[in-house]
This record gives sequence, structure tokens and C-alpha cells, in this order.
Amino acid sequence: MVIPIVLGLGVFSLLVALMYARQVANVRIEDGASSPEEVGRLKEISGAIAEGAMAFLRREYTVLGGFMLAFAVIIFFVIKDVHNVSLPFGAYSAISFLIGAGISILSGYIGMRIATIGNVRTAAAARISLEQSFSIAFRSGAVMGFGLTGLAVLGLMLVYMGFDFFLPQELHNRDLVIMEILSGFGLGGSSVALFGRVGGGIYTKAADVGADLVGKVEAGIPEDDPRNPAVIADNVGDNVGDIAGMGADLFGSVAESTCAAMVIGATAFATVPTDMKQAALLFPLAISGIGIIASFISLFFARPKVENKVENALKAVLVISTLLMLGMVYPLTMNMVPKEFSLTAGGTMYTQMGVFYSVAAGLISGLLIGLITEYYTSHRYGPVRQVANASKTGAATNIIYGLALGYNSAVLPMILIGITVVIGYHYAGMYGIAMAAIGMLGTIAVGLTIDAYGPVSDNAGGIAEMAEMGKDIRTRTDALDAAGNTTAAIGKGFAIGSAALTSLALTSAFLTRANITNVNVLEPQVMFGLMIGSALPFAFSAMTMRSVGLAALAMIEEVRRQFRTIPGLLEGKARADYAKCVEISTDASIKQMIAPGLLVILSPLIVGFFGGVQMLAGVLIGSLITGVMLAISMANSGGAWDNAKKYIETGQLGGKGSDTHKAAVVGDTVGDPFKDTSGPALNILIKLMAIISLVFVPFFL
Amino acid sequence: MVIPIVLGLGVFSLLVALMYARQVANVRIEDGASSPEEVGRLKEISGAIAEGAMAFLRREYTVLGGFMLAFAVIIFFVIKDVHNVSLPFGAYSAISFLIGAGISILSGYIGMRIATIGNVRTAAAARISLEQSFSIAFRSGAVMGFGLTGLAVLGLMLVYMGFDFFLPQELHNRDLVIMEILSGFGLGGSSVALFGRVGGGIYTKAADVGADLVGKVEAGIPEDDPRNPAVIADNVGDNVGDIAGMGADLFGSVAESTCAAMVIGATAFATVPTDMKQAALLFPLAISGIGIIASFISLFFARPKVENKVENALKAVLVISTLLMLGMVYPLTMNMVPKEFSLTAGGTMYTQMGVFYSVAAGLISGLLIGLITEYYTSHRYGPVRQVANASKTGAATNIIYGLALGYNSAVLPMILIGITVVIGYHYAGMYGIAMAAIGMLGTIAVGLTIDAYGPVSDNAGGIAEMAEMGKDIRTRTDALDAAGNTTAAIGKGFAIGSAALTSLALTSAFLTRANITNVNVLEPQVMFGLMIGSALPFAFSAMTMRSVGLAALAMIEEVRRQFRTIPGLLEGKARADYAKCVEISTDASIKQMIAPGLLVILSPLIVGFFGGVQMLAGVLIGSLITGVMLAISMANSGGAWDNAKKYIETGQLGGKGSDTHKAAVVGDTVGDPFKDTSGPALNILIKLMAIISLVFVPFFL
Repeated sequence: MVIPIVLGLGVFSLLVALMYARQVANVRIEDGASSPEEVGRLKEISGAIAEGAMAFLRREYTVLGGFMLAFAVIIFFVIKDVHNVSLPFGAYSAISFLIGAGISILSGYIGMRIATIGNVRTAAAARISLEQSFSIAFRSGAVMGFGLTGLAVLGLMLVYMGFDFFLPQELHNRDLVIMEILSGFGLGGSSVALFGRVGGGIYTKAADVGADLVGKVEAGIPEDDPRNPAVIADNVGDNVGDIAGMGADLFGSVAESTCAAMVIGATAFATVPTDMKQAALLFPLAISGIGIIASFISLFFARPKVENKVENALKAVLVISTLLMLGMVYPLTMNMVPKEFSLTAGGTMYTQMGVFYSVAAGLISGLLIGLITEYYTSHRYGPVRQVANASKTGAATNIIYGLALGYNSAVLPMILIGITVVIGYHYAGMYGIAMAAIGMLGTIAVGLTIDAYGPVSDNAGGIAEMAEMGKDIRTRTDALDAAGNTTAAIGKGFAIGSAALTSLALTSAFLTRANITNVNVLEPQVMFGLMIGSALPFAFSAMTMRSVGLAALAMIEEVRRQFRTIPGLLEGKARADYAKCVEISTDASIKQMIAPGLLVILSPLIVGFFGGVQMLAGVLIGSLITGVMLAISMANSGGAWDNAKKYIETGQLGGKGSDTHKAAVVGDTVGDPFKDTSGPALNILIKLMAIISLVFVPFFL
Repeated sequence: MVIPIVLGLGVFSLLVALMYARQVANVRIEDGASSPEEVGRLKEISGAIAEGAMAFLRREYTVLGGFMLAFAVIIFFVIKDVHNVSLPFGAYSAISFLIGAGISILSGYIGMRIATIGNVRTAAAARISLEQSFSIAFRSGAVMGFGLTGLAVLGLMLVYMGFDFFLPQELHNRDLVIMEILSGFGLGGSSVALFGRVGGGIYTKAADVGADLVGKVEAGIPEDDPRNPAVIADNVGDNVGDIAGMGADLFGSVAESTCAAMVIGATAFATVPTDMKQAALLFPLAISGIGIIASFISLFFARPKVENKVENALKAVLVISTLLMLGMVYPLTMNMVPKEFSLTAGGTMYTQMGVFYSVAAGLISGLLIGLITEYYTSHRYGPVRQVANASKTGAATNIIYGLALGYNSAVLPMILIGITVVIGYHYAGMYGIAMAAIGMLGTIAVGLTIDAYGPVSDNAGGIAEMAEMGKDIRTRTDALDAAGNTTAAIGKGFAIGSAALTSLALTSAFLTRANITNVNVLEPQVMFGLMIGSALPFAFSAMTMRSVGLAALAMIEEVRRQFRTIPGLLEGKARADYAKCVEISTDASIKQMIAPGLLVILSPLIVGFFGGVQMLAGVLIGSLITGVMLAISMANSGGAWDNAKKYIETGQLGGKGSDTHKAAVVGDTVGDPFKDTSGPALNILIKLMAIISLVFVPFFL
């Protein structure tokens, strides 16, 4: 019964995505246009953005494709038949890996397609009403949210079914073998995410910083001005980073946490009677499945009527989906999880109820982390206003306060993650930690909808500006965009929180698989591992920050060159060479993502092979804790600087153009690589190192 | 034999300090003065600095005195007689604590006295020659270095002897009991350091930032201009932060690492024959003792003849003292440490040679960390020049590159600390880790000499400027100061490296005392502890950074008020009210140091009491690893920004006054609280939490 229901929910999710995609695509750009020229401009600009986005994806996926094949070959040769079941373990894992990678690539592609269709239609619909415009942006987001969730659930289920069908029934440790093969799927998803997040993050910020520094600061032209040669690259960047990157990140989290839970579950439920076993094993997937329903219902509560209530409407959706989930998880747990179970023969007994508590802890702490993030990054509250205030004494005090805000903002989320781990572990051991991650990701469809809504609105504003649609239209798209900024910060908090739990779940699965129950910090190899691990996020952040710097420098030089060599460009008489800037961002990001990518992939392999699994466990935990602290503080410092600038732009503290504003712009620029490159990329670092350890553990032992 | 020799070395160290103090004091300010007015100005300015410094110390020590007494009362009541030996454990520990605190206070006082005598004499001697001026600054530093080391060695030895004499001979576990009581001494020293580092750090940067932002940026007057009302407070701040704060920090490290080594040693050498036992027990103190000789000999190699060779002369001293130490530690180990020993009955056997390897690992990695720090913070090398280059595109890119440099610079030192821990543990278990810390601190007398040399030269430059001694003099003091900047950065790297090892040694001693041999990260309370611990340095840094911001704001307002209300001040016709600015810095720093101080002191007590020793172990290790990473990256970002600015001021990239220079000034200002407040204060956080855990462990069990 479980399999058809989950499959049905996956298909339902895809249908929801398809329905919304049609609704978005059916919006006619011509309706209500003030002139045929406006329609022409809209089509031209959105065409350029779409073309740039697809050009980037093609280039990225070509590089990725080669890399994935090479990685698959390594998996094929290196992964050993640890259970001595005479199966081509390497081959199976490689297949699972390639399917995971393929689906992740497909999800990114779908997200980019709909975002580049939805952006111009959101701008067009703003001619009619705020509500109409919001609904197009929101539905574009939902295509991403439900499409990706549906693909994740279906993909995991079908791969499971495939190996379940294919593997001999009498196999020893059959369930565990299947789940271990399935972890290749998670690895595939996460490897794509690495390049999506890192490459996308570098792309978007190189374009943004380059466009801002030369356009806004040097040439004195406004944001999104069509005279700026980097403006199309900047708009492409929003999609590349926040749609494809974020999507791949969260797809990876869902796939990985599900794999982790199922690997641990395969051991835990080994002795459960056959008729109840499949339900117990597939319970993590069922939660993701019903999350689709909860998310779908909550969508109907997103109905903003007034411009300054958009943020509340989006927050309401998050709260309602969490509450619905809580109500639905309870009966599901009672029906699918055995009344009592233990993770090892003769180990501690856990209960159904304990599993429910674990899932609930994840769900609730995810919501709380989101709300804490909002408090630290929205200019409705004290912290951001303090940063704005500190800009009065110059850029230096703006930076000092912004950094301090970021450091501070990471403390409570870290404690919440800690409490969730304690609850999960107390009530259901390592399985509880994995289920807390599944719980936090339960409302992923709606979370992603809101995340993807942001860049679509942002793009819509850019298009409205470039197509000179007039001030009223821009006010509406700005209202949508402002709400998107805050929800983007919430989304980042949520992404790192779930990445932390996912990484812990994967680490738990890795330890379960390596038969390790004790990681003693007092052993020197563990301590050494902790130290190396704690240094990795710092090394990685330094690399990605400098990559942005180098890429932005190339962009700056190109924009300056165009201003210098294209006659009449600054007067608006000539057209900028947008394609050249898109090419520079694409080239730079693809080149610069290699080194940090290799650091993340090679570190666990080298440590695992030469230092052993105990040291590797230390590395995973060390990088997890400093990674989470750094990622949250970077994301929130960045968000706060951005919104402190926006707060001043509302006319506070001297308003736009004042010295205070100029100081705030410095913070905003520093925050760009913080919040959109290095911070989010750390999610991938902690998850990918853990799943590599899980998949390659037979090789280390 | 050991006791008289160590006592003799301690006395020798004090005599060296006394000799240098006399030589410094004997320099006549009048010699070679261009006019009686100049002498008058010199005396007036240096008098104001000395007065401000002493006023701060009086205020700080009054607050501290009350706090120390209260803390002693808590120790008196809370520390239990864990060995059931019917001794007033609490009373003994409280006495030991008060002596440690008292000696630390005395060291700070001596350092401040000599610095405020030496600064003006360094300026005066610059009239004669660079070499003469260097030698006064260097000898002032040596008074601090040898005075403090002598007091530390003598204090520890005399307290040991006191309790050895006083306690009944037939006492069970007698050595261990004495060493545990002795840890109160370390706690006392470290508690003073907390306030010295935090309060001093806030003082110095509030004055510096305040003076810079209003004076240099708003009013456009040069640094150290006598018209700036905050200029005396700024010069006082150099002494308060870098002399009293740094001294208390390193005094704490010596006292704590010695206590840690002796607590572990008391268990390890319990079965050693009586005639060899005392030598083995007191081996850590003997190393500190011979360090005095190695340091003294190396002083004679500090002979810079040319202005741009000052830095090399100082580095040579560091290298030579390390090599001398290596040569002297070997025979010492062979004579004092038993050929074979184990830390627990029937545990792994370790050898003499293993102890030597541990000490050597500490010594060498200390030197290497210093040299790595120099690479990242001196503008002779690539990293700082990249930061300077990035200032061409504005303050934002300067900040991004500076932060990335800091993150990167912490990676290798962390790995070196890790390798040292592995070597120490492999060759001599937890005793090896403690001995590595002792080794790293072996050349402390010369390290402190070089550290204290910096602010004395810095002050000399300020005094020369304010007393209008002319350009030639200023060029000489600038050359001394520039070298001091780099050695200050080296000193900070060394301080955090030794703090990390000391903290690990204390944690080891704490675990030894709590009879814990397994801290399993997979236990939820340990994992929770790790997470909380990793968040503490972030919370603490945020607090101290904002404290600097608040204190600087008060200073800014006062300076603005004086410019506004004192007629003729900016024209140089009226005298600024320096005392008022000194008072504001003093008040603000003393008020602002309370909250971060309580965070550090209460966290281990609360966790230990409510969460238990396992969770506390997690907290200590978590805060150690993120604390070290943050502290090194903050110190080096700050040092790099400072020197990037100085590099531009040498005429590169447009030189002083250019836009590039303005961008670099923003980085320098952000770096101030980084490198002089938050970064160094983290040393204390990680050490103090560990020694509180060690002293209070009977209370938790």
C-alpha cells in the first residue's frame, strides 16, 4: 500500500507543478501593454535573460557531465562488495549515483525554465494588480517547489523499487544492501548541488558586484539600468544562484536525509515482521509524500491584498504548512512505524511516539530557525536598525556591527539544532536524528516555492526597470521583491539548519555502516580530525570569497571597457554588449568552482583513506560545527547589510545618496559574497563530505 | 636541588628586569634636547599618559579586587574535599587563587610603570641614534618579559613549597592534592587576564577608533596630533591593551599550563621512587626556569644598525631563543624525567625521550605559527599586498579580501596545533599535550619582551609627534614602530597558539581529575556540548565588538563636543581636555567588560553543574576549536588591514590621501576591534573556561 500511495503523491506533485506552469505560461505579455514597443522591449530583455541563463546551464552541465561520469567511474572501481554478496556493488552504486545526478540536473533545468518564463509575466501582470502579479511570481515558485519535490520522491522510490525488484530475494542483509546502493542517489544529487551552489554563487555575485561597482558607484547610473552592460548578467545571476543553486542544494538535502534515514532504518527494522517491514522502511519517503499535501493546502493561504502585507502572507504559508504537517505526521507514524524497535540487537528500545517526537522536533525547530533569521535580517526589528544606525559613523562601524550581528544570530539557531539532536537521539537514537532532518524538510515544497518566488520577483523588477514600464509597476514589483528578500533570508536559515541535521544524519549512517559506536575526542586521531575539520569551512569560505573577487574584477574591467569603447552607451544611444558580460560571468564561475569543489570532495577521501574512519568522523563533526556557525553568520550578516541599506533607502537616517547610505552600500557589497556565495556553499560542504564518507566507507575499512 | 635552582633562576629573572629598568630610568630626557620647551612638552605629555594609564589601572583593579574577593568566597564555599583528606580544600584553593591574582596584578602594574617610563625615553634617545632608541624600547620590553616570567616562576614555586611544607606528610594522594590546590593559582592569574584583555581591549580600541573617526576623518588632522582630545587616551590605550592585557594573558598561560602539567604529572609520577619524584614533578617549572637563560642569551642578538632591519633583528631573537631552548631542554629532560612512566596504573608506558619530543613539538610549532603569522600580516609578502590591491576598487573589496585572508591564515596554524597535539599525545599521553604547551611557552620571556617593545615604540612615536620633535626623530620611531606592528602580530599568533595548547592541557587535567577517559561525540550530551561550545566564541566576539562600538561612540561624541565648545582648539591655540577622554574610555571599558566576562565565567559553571562533566568536556572542546579559528583569523585580518594601509602609505597604489588609501583606512578601522579586542580576548575565553572546569570539578561530580 505504501508504494502506490507515495508514487501517487509524487505524480500529484508533478501535476501540481505542471498546472501552475501552464497558468504562468498562459499569461500574455501583450495584455494591458501601453505600447507595442513595450511588448517588444519586454520580449527582448526577457529573451536575453533566458538565453544567458540557458547558456550558463549548458556550459555548467557540460563540465558537470564530464565530472559526473568520471566520478561514476571512480565509484564503479572503488566501492567494494562489503557484504560479500557477490554483487557488482560499484556498478549499482554508480547507476544510482548517475540517476540522482541526472534528476538534480533536470530539477535545476525545470526551475530555470519556469523562472525565465515567469519573471517577464510577473512584470506584465503588475500592470493589472499587485495580487495578480504576486500570484504569477508565487506560482512560478510553486512549479519549482512541487516539481523538484515530486522528482525527488519519485526518483528515490523508483530507484528503490528497481533494486528491490532486481536483487535476489535470498540476499543476506538485503534491505541494508539496497539502502546502501540508494545512498549513491543522494551523492549524485549532492555533487550536482556542489557545483550549482558554488558555481552559481560565484556567477551571481561576480555579476552583481561588477554591475554595482562600475555602474552605480563609478558611472552613477541606477540599478537595473539598461545602459549597464552587466545588467543582463546580473539578472541571469539571480536565477543561476537562487533557483538552480538553491534547488540543487535542497534536492540534495531531501535525497541525502532520506538515504540516511533508510540506511539506519534498514538495520533498525531488520527484525520487524515482513508484513510491517516495508512500511517501516519507507516511512521517511512517506513523510516527504504527505508533505506535498500539507504544502499544497497551505498555498491557498497566500493571498496578499496590500503591498506591505506580502511578507506576512508568505510567513503565514510557512506556519500553516508546519501545523498541517504536525497534524498529519502523527497518524502516519502510528500506522507505519513499529510500536517498539531497537537500532541494534539487544540495544535500547525506542517507540513509535519517540519517532513522532523526533520528526516534530525537526519541523518545529525549522520554523523557529526561520523566524529567528527573520528577526535578525528584517529591518522591522532592532538588529538591522542598529546596523543602519552604525552607518552614520561610516563604513567601518557598519561593517563591525554587521559582522557582530551575524556572529550573534548564529547562536540561537545552533542551540536549536543542538536541542533537536538531543530530542531526536533521546527518543529514537541515530534514527531520531535522521527523522528530525526529514521532519525539517517535510515542508520543502512550500519552502522552495517561497524561495524561488524571490528571484522571480527580483527579475520582474529588473525587467520592469529596463523596459521602462513606469513607476507604478516598479512600486508593485518592489513590494514583491522586498518580501522576497526577507523570505530568502528565512530560506537560507532553513537550508543551513536542514543541512546540519542532514549532515548529522549522514554521519550517523556512516558510523552505523562502519560499525562505530564510540568516537572518543580524547583519541588523538579524533582530536586531530576535529581540528582539521574545523579549519575546512574557513579555508573553503576564503576560497569562494576570493573567487568572487577575481570574477568580479574581470567583470569590472569589461564594463569599464564597454563604457570607454562603445560610443554613446552612457547617453543611452547605443546598446551594450550584454552577451560578453554573460560570457565572462559564465567562464569565471566555471573556472573558479573547480578548486573549492575539489577541496570538498578530496578531503574526506584523503582523510578516510590515510587517517581512518575515526579521524574522518572527527573531520565531519568539526566541519559541521564551524560550518554551521560560519554559514548562518555569513548569511545573516549579508541579509542584514542588504536590509539596512534598504531601510535607509526608505528615507531613514538621511535616505538615498547620503553619506550614511554610502556607508551602508559598502556593507551591502561585502554581504553579497557572504550571503549568496560562501554562506550557502557551506551547506554543501558539510553535507557532501558526510555522504561521500557514507558511500565510500567500504573503501576506507 | 631542583627547588633552589628554579628559585635562583626566578630571582635571576627579576634581577635582569631590575637591571634593565634602571638602565631605562637612567636615560635623561634632557640630554640632547633642542630646547627647554621640548623637555617641558615631553614631560607634560608622558606625564599625562602615565597618569591616564595609572588612573585606568586603579579603577580596573578596584573593580577586579572586589570581583576577586567575591570569587574567592565562592571558591571557599563551593570547592569540596574530594579526596576525603579532612583538609579545608576551599580555603586553600581560595588562598592559592588570591596569590595568583595578586601576582598577575603586580605584573601588569610593573609592565605599565616601565612602559610609561620607557616610552618618553625611547623618544628622547631617538635624538641620538636609531640603535640607542631601539635599545631603550627593547629594554623596557625586557623589564616586562623577565619581570613577569620571574614572578610567575617564583610565585608558582613558592606556593608549591608553602603547601608542601604545610600539608601533613602522611596525606593520601599528597602530590595530587598539592597540585590541585595550586591550580587555584592559575585560575587567579587567568581571571585577572580576562578583565585585562577584555577591559584593556575595549579601552584601547574605543580610544583609537574614536580618535581616528573624528580626528583623522572628520576634522582632517593627522594621527597623534595634540589638538585631538582623544590622543592621550589613544596612547594610554596602547599600554592598557598591549602591555597589561597581553602580560596578564601570557602570565595566565604560563601559570595554567604549569598547573595542568603538574596535576597530570602528580598522577603519572605517583609510583616514581621518592628521590626522583620531586624532580619529575617540578620538571615543568624547570623548563620555564631554563627558558629564562635561553631568553637572556638571545637578547644579545638584538642589534639593528639600519632602519629597515629592525624586524629581522627581532625575528633573529625569536629563532635563536628557540634553538637555545631545544639544546637545553634535552639534557634537562634526561636528568629530571623518569626513564619510563605511565599515566595510570598499568596504562601505556611512555619514555623520557617522548617527553622531550613533546616539549620540542611545542617549541617548534610555536615558532612556525609565528612565522606563518608574519607571512600573512607583513606587507613584505603577497597576501597583504593583495588586500592593498583590492582597495583600488573600494572599501568593500578591501574588506572581502581582508576577511578571506584571515580565514585562510588560520588553517595552517590550526593544523600545526593539531600535529603538536598528536605528537604530544602519541609520545606522552595527556602529559605530552601539557608539556607541548610548556614548550611553546618556554621562550616566553623573550616573546613578551618583543611584544611589549611594540607599544613602547608606538607610544614613543606618538610622544615625538605631540612634542613636535621633528621629522628625523619621527622617522626613527616610525621604523621602530613598524617592526613592532609585525612582531605584535607574531606575538598574537603565539599567544593564541599557546592558549590553545594550554586550554587542551587544562582540559586534559580536568578529565584526568574527573576520571574520564572517554568523551564520545555520539553521546547526545557531548554533541550538545560541542554545539553550545562552538557558539560561545561567536557570542563572545559579537559582545566585545559591540562593546567597542558603544565605547567608541561615547568617545566620538566627547571629541566632537570638545571641538565644538572649546574655542581655538582646532587652531592649536587652546588645550584639549584630555582627562575627560581618558575618563570616558576608562568608564566605558570597565562597564562593558562585565557582560562578556560573566559569559565566560558562568558558562562552564552552569554547564558543569546542570549538564555534567561530559557535556562540559564537549563545551570546552567546541569552544576551543571555533575559538582558535576565530581568534587567529580576526588577529590576522586586523594585522593585514593595518599593514595594507601602511603599505599604501609608503607611496604605493596612489599613496596617502588617495581613494585607495581611504578604502584601506576603512579596513584598518574594522580591524582594530578584530585584532586588539575580540581576537585576543578569545585566548582568555578558551583558557579560563578550561581552568574553571579544572578547579570546580569536585563541585560538579
